[in-house]
Amino acid sequence: METNRLQAEDQEVLDHLLEKVKEQTELFLGYPVSKDFDYQNLYDFFKYPMNNLGDPFVASTYGVGSRELEKEVVQFFAELFRAPQNNWWGYVTNGGSEGNLYGLYLARELHPKAMVYYSEATHYSVQKNLHLLNMGNIVIRTQENGEIDYDDLEYTIRMNRHMPVIIMANIGTTMTEARDDVARIKAILKKLAIQHYYIHADAALSGTYSALIEPRPAFDFEDGADSIAISGHKFFGSPMPCGVVVAKKSNRDRIARSVDYIGSVDTTITGSRNGHSPLFLWHTIKRLGIAGLKSRAMQSLATAAYTEMKLKEIGIAAWRNQDAITVNFPTPSATICKKWQLAAEQGHSHIICMPNVRPSHIDLLIADLEAEMVLRN
Amino acid sequence: METNRLQAEDQEVLDHLLEKVKEQTELFLGYPVSKDFDYQNLYDFFKYPMNNLGDPFVASTYGVGSRELEKEVVQFFAELFRAPQNNWWGYVTNGGSEGNLYGLYLARELHPKAMVYYSEATHYSVQKNLHLLNMGNIVIRTQENGEIDYDDLEYTIRMNRHMPVIIMANIGTTMTEARDDVARIKAILKKLAIQHYYIHADAALSGTYSALIEPRPAFDFEDGADSIAISGHKFFGSPMPCGVVVAKKSNRDRIARSVDYIGSVDTTITGSRNGHSPLFLWHTIKRLGIAGLKSRAMQSLATAAYTEMKLKEIGIAAWRNQDAITVNFPTPSATICKKWQLAAEQGHSHIICMPNVRPSHIDLLIADLEAEMVLRN
Repeated sequence: METNRLQAEDQEVLDHLLEKVKEQTELFLGYPVSKDFDYQNLYDFFKYPMNNLGDPFVASTYGVGSRELEKEVVQFFAELFRAPQNNWWGYVTNGGSEGNLYGLYLARELHPKAMVYYSEATHYSVQKNLHLLNMGNIVIRTQENGEIDYDDLEYTIRMNRHMPVIIMANIGTTMTEARDDVARIKAILKKLAIQHYYIHADAALSGTYSALIEPRPAFDFEDGADSIAISGHKFFGSPMPCGVVVAKKSNRDRIARSVDYIGSVDTTITGSRNGHSPLFLWHTIKRLGIAGLKSRAMQSLATAAYTEMKLKEIGIAAWRNQDAITVNFPTPSATICKKWQLAAEQGHSHIICMPNVRPSHIDLLIADLEAEMVLRN
Repeated sequence: METNRLQAEDQEVLDHLLEKVKEQTELFLGYPVSKDFDYQNLYDFFKYPMNNLGDPFVASTYGVGSRELEKEVVQFFAELFRAPQNNWWGYVTNGGSEGNLYGLYLARELHPKAMVYYSEATHYSVQKNLHLLNMGNIVIRTQENGEIDYDDLEYTIRMNRHMPVIIMANIGTTMTEARDDVARIKAILKKLAIQHYYIHADAALSGTYSALIEPRPAFDFEDGADSIAISGHKFFGSPMPCGVVVAKKSNRDRIARSVDYIGSVDTTITGSRNGHSPLFLWHTIKRLGIAGLKSRAMQSLATAAYTEMKLKEIGIAAWRNQDAITVNFPTPSATICKKWQLAAEQGHSHIICMPNVRPSHIDLLIADLEAEMVLRN
């Protein structure tokens, strides 16, 4: 008979890994991942092969999944992002990249001959996606703070007015959490009399809380976006990468295709889809509600302000964008980068004050930085 | 303070869903999903935001993941599928579709002007993938049993000898579990003196156990495949969809691209990747070993033989392909399809004798079928 026991040496490998994961999770400030979640309430679902096969809004013959809850999750974000009433659609993805891939795919289907524009601060996965989709694209310069250079964007579109325009806007860039202003981009398109265009917002990190702060940054459907992708494992927190993409239903319908096999019209990127991740998102939405999510955002912003202040106090040139939880500063030593898992790009690093990051963590990092300064002097 | 408790009405929604999932899992024979897994041993990992960011074979600064175990999983399948020594590469995917997308992407990068050939029994996700990748393709007829029609394939390639050839071979089609013979396909390419070609094997369902039976079907690297994708939630069993893709390292290297951000050369489709699913696969490999997996396969084949016999005994025209665990028969009533979650395509249905399916389940289905026959007469 099959048994569930592993041999002692294999069990040891797992035990070591768990220990390492636990330890590494304790000390990371450089990645946009919340780790303050507790989904034990949902563990019983791990006993079953959940699979939200195909489109969540079309009934399927496969009954072991969480499609109903997934639909509620999509609806929550559609409303949060002010999608047009009765004209929204979406699904829970395996992460921000898949959501962006979906948005760009939709854009390509609507405007096959379009040129895609995105800023140089855009996450590398977008270029990977564009290559996969075989879409022509032009990189636009960024301003100092990581926001797209609107003059360069306008100038470049002006040079290509014969082509439909697809914009990939960043709502929180990877390095500095800069937000491209979707309303301002739309105004440029209007000024140039571009009639065929599509705006996708990569709101992986900042999407959720951008909708909860005042003044509200211009990034959602009412501001001009045609689709928005967010990550679920970032601000919400989830054991595995996941995300949500919301698009206009009318656009999605144009690329729908009938599929006999699963009794479903499937326009999702993958066919078999994770049935557990919608449960995590649903759980967090229900548990916190808008008020709880808002205070979660406010706490992160407060920690970011604290971090910026503390770094400046010890003479480090820290800065951050307005209403950003990412604090930027010159890359510290390799030892500190490794210990706190800080990403580095061209001499710049950042601390991302995810909701689980507390001032006490910041104090420890500051102490490490100070200790090195003393050694160096 | 945030609490982990849900309101009573929300908890009730979850409880109902769990009940439904449990019930529906009990009664399904129509989908290729194993449900006899028990990974409680791994639940502690669900407390952490595991993420195997980027390429598993390139070190990353993000330390909370299972990359070392993922590499062992890929190695296991590379060896099982007789990949060339020191020239294999791969990763754990979110399912069979992503593995096929990767194989086709690799093929397109190597042969941008190629024509893709695949049989009409191919899973619908392949067409979706080809559309996404913008690749020209021709559908080849199938034989009665669902296997590709080699004459039609040869004839069609002959008509297009000026183009490189990409073949998408099915190692177990969705409906009848037919296997395309990769060695025979390779012989056709040789006969037509096609020098530039790529063969990807979609071995989602049958890959693992096809390597464990005698005579061994011709489907792997030694037989001529350049890449192979399997599903992890099928024969192995896993709470969430997952899979493995194995390719030749030399091919993968040609599409590698340097990425500063994560300190990783990332050629995977998604960037953030599930860090839990490699644990499930690793756990099963370690627990069962080759011998255990082999007996798991033998048991399924025995159940399939039993099912075919039982259906025939009550006068139903059942049949199956050689060494297949899928038993085909005319689609029964809608009531029975719904109860047992049987997929239907053009009047044909099937029972897939996954390792968890026992003769006792089959007996219950047979009883249902017989009861309906009595009613009808």
